[in-house]
Amino acid sequence: MIAPEEAWRRLLEHLRPLPARRLPRALAAGRVVAESLRATVDVPFADVSAMDGYAVGGDAAAGTSLPVVATVAAGAPPGLVLPPGAAARIMTGAPLPVGADRVVPREEVAADGEQIAIRVAPPSGAHVRRRGEVQRAGEPLLAAGDLLTPGALALLAAHGHDEVAVHPPPRLALLVTGDEVVAPERKPGPGQLRDSHGAFVVAAATAAGAEVRSLGIAGDDPRLLRERLEQGLAADLLLVTGGVSQGDYDFVEPVLAALGFDTLFDAVAIQPGKPLVAAVAGAGQPLVFGLPGNPASAMVCFWLFVRPALRRLQGHADGFWVGALDGTLATALPSAGARDRFLPATVEAREGRLHVTPWLARGSHDLAAYARGNALVRVTAGSPPAPAGAHCSVLPL
Amino acid sequence: MIAPEEAWRRLLEHLRPLPARRLPRALAAGRVVAESLRATVDVPFADVSAMDGYAVGGDAAAGTSLPVVATVAAGAPPGLVLPPGAAARIMTGAPLPVGADRVVPREEVAADGEQIAIRVAPPSGAHVRRRGEVQRAGEPLLAAGDLLTPGALALLAAHGHDEVAVHPPPRLALLVTGDEVVAPERKPGPGQLRDSHGAFVVAAATAAGAEVRSLGIAGDDPRLLRERLEQGLAADLLLVTGGVSQGDYDFVEPVLAALGFDTLFDAVAIQPGKPLVAAVAGAGQPLVFGLPGNPASAMVCFWLFVRPALRRLQGHADGFWVGALDGTLATALPSAGARDRFLPATVEAREGRLHVTPWLARGSHDLAAYARGNALVRVTAGSPPAPAGAHCSVLPL
Repeated sequence: MIAPEEAWRRLLEHLRPLPARRLPRALAAGRVVAESLRATVDVPFADVSAMDGYAVGGDAAAGTSLPVVATVAAGAPPGLVLPPGAAARIMTGAPLPVGADRVVPREEVAADGEQIAIRVAPPSGAHVRRRGEVQRAGEPLLAAGDLLTPGALALLAAHGHDEVAVHPPPRLALLVTGDEVVAPERKPGPGQLRDSHGAFVVAAATAAGAEVRSLGIAGDDPRLLRERLEQGLAADLLLVTGGVSQGDYDFVEPVLAALGFDTLFDAVAIQPGKPLVAAVAGAGQPLVFGLPGNPASAMVCFWLFVRPALRRLQGHADGFWVGALDGTLATALPSAGARDRFLPATVEAREGRLHVTPWLARGSHDLAAYARGNALVRVTAGSPPAPAGAHCSVLPL
Repeated sequence: MIAPEEAWRRLLEHLRPLPARRLPRALAAGRVVAESLRATVDVPFADVSAMDGYAVGGDAAAGTSLPVVATVAAGAPPGLVLPPGAAARIMTGAPLPVGADRVVPREEVAADGEQIAIRVAPPSGAHVRRRGEVQRAGEPLLAAGDLLTPGALALLAAHGHDEVAVHPPPRLALLVTGDEVVAPERKPGPGQLRDSHGAFVVAAATAAGAEVRSLGIAGDDPRLLRERLEQGLAADLLLVTGGVSQGDYDFVEPVLAALGFDTLFDAVAIQPGKPLVAAVAGAGQPLVFGLPGNPASAMVCFWLFVRPALRRLQGHADGFWVGALDGTLATALPSAGARDRFLPATVEAREGRLHVTPWLARGSHDLAAYARGNALVRVTAGSPPAPAGAHCSVLPL
């Protein structure tokens, strides 16, 4: 049995970001950039007005009257020539006429038909945005490793980058095992129960940026298990649920060994989730996780190890318990034994603090407790019970 | 000009959760339940073993030897009868035989072919999960208002709920305005620039659970504007960018008025983003937001008002600055003038605290600053500059 930090250290050696792929900009949202991208235009594209007002050239003292000889709307091409001693009506974002060097906001003139009287004298350059003052063509926009936030996609659109090289969605293959398990759309016979892993993994892994392929449900039969696992070997990450304890019907480890996989670990000092298996083979083979068959353990293992692994494959800097925050317990937290204990919890931001309500599962099959949680709270090994109001470490999911 | 809290209060009166729609479970991820859902099966479905081991009946003192007369695998139907004085090999999750009342874990027997010798005497009920101890058929699983977390979807799967009534995705229609604006895939001519609002809104609104329909780009022409806005009136929320200042070419407010819309507000005391318009008409008409044409202002208005509005329509309890957390400044924060100021920022969790790096935009067209941000940081009106290490209020996006 190894510590969870050691388990992550072993995993990390096998988690390189996936090779870059060019995606249309809209499909790249939330992904990590895998190239350098540069500005293609100057921003602004010319000297433009920052206000609706009047473009004038040279000194224009308060009280000066000027004829308005033209109107420059946004979208007009630059190059209009303003004669000396005249003004041009100009809109926000419109190019400054040649001969103008400042803008008087419309609030600061008295307009009278074709004539304006300047009320407040503007200094040279007033209310003008200079060509390229925000960005010059050729300057860097984004670098490899940057996250494609909605704002970053706007930036790419402004510079006409319609495609972008990113670390693509990892392909996750999921095999559910267990003689007693039937698909959720089937009515379970006596002694059977419906699969819940599939629904969980599809939702959780999709939200983590992966593409999930289901390999169905396999009974506890090593031949069948091997056949199904082989179908998942083209994935980037292969997830098997069940069959990882030390029981007579737990065939996942021996079948993986027969397929040439080496076990990185098969027991982690966490509660629930101890019988967690991770295995690797040569290049081009997926990282395999064998999650415990009971749903609570599988969920905890997913959040603690599989999600950060999926995010690492996508170029995010994630890891074990990375992103955890300090919170305040809304209700008491029980003690932990020899292993770090993880409980589902609901977090809510109130007055800048995270308020954490842990849910006590009625056994490791208590899906209802996990259903309510949008976070995990950690109770370090050996901790006594903590009262409401105490601090805790919580990982929002 | 009104305070942002007052703007939200006015919006909130027009933000009821959308009428429920039944969706397949997999499409309901992240949505809010709009019905009560009940357990359809007992969990566990029978008295089952919690361990791999041996089922025995009645007292079995340490040292007792028993013949192993059967094997019960997971998936076997309940009902096997165990004769008195015998044991059955049993797997985790398999139904306890009739006549058995406890399980001895395999680690606590000496097994010798067809015979076991009990090393540790188990009390009655040991390692047995009782039928229905986690959940009984008919008990509530989820209630209206609950969030469909991945764990909640697992719970629904376990009980065979293949569809669920939820508040559906809001339909957001987006119209970009501006004579100077061209689609990002076009090469801008002299005086033109590429639209960046579309890329931002599609990514940000999709991530907030909405379905976005583009109404294209309209020039600053009241007739054209009206025609396009009418195409968006079937949406739940209609977003227009540009044309909301008090300039000569700002036609959004008059056109909305002509379409029968009442303005809720048209100036909010925030920086950037002051010229934000919200308007409503009768039942069945969308809430309309007119966002400022400059990208930075539009983004800030989206995060502060449009996103919580979209989430309210989906039944989430969101609001203005709801979800904000206390953070520590990694670099200095500038002062704010008469209005609350919002800056893009990067947040990172370190040792349980959010470390906040604000980005100073080079003007309201500086998309690059917003591209880097995964959060907004708030500088309250009248605040002096804050040094690195000071506390701040930050909204993760």
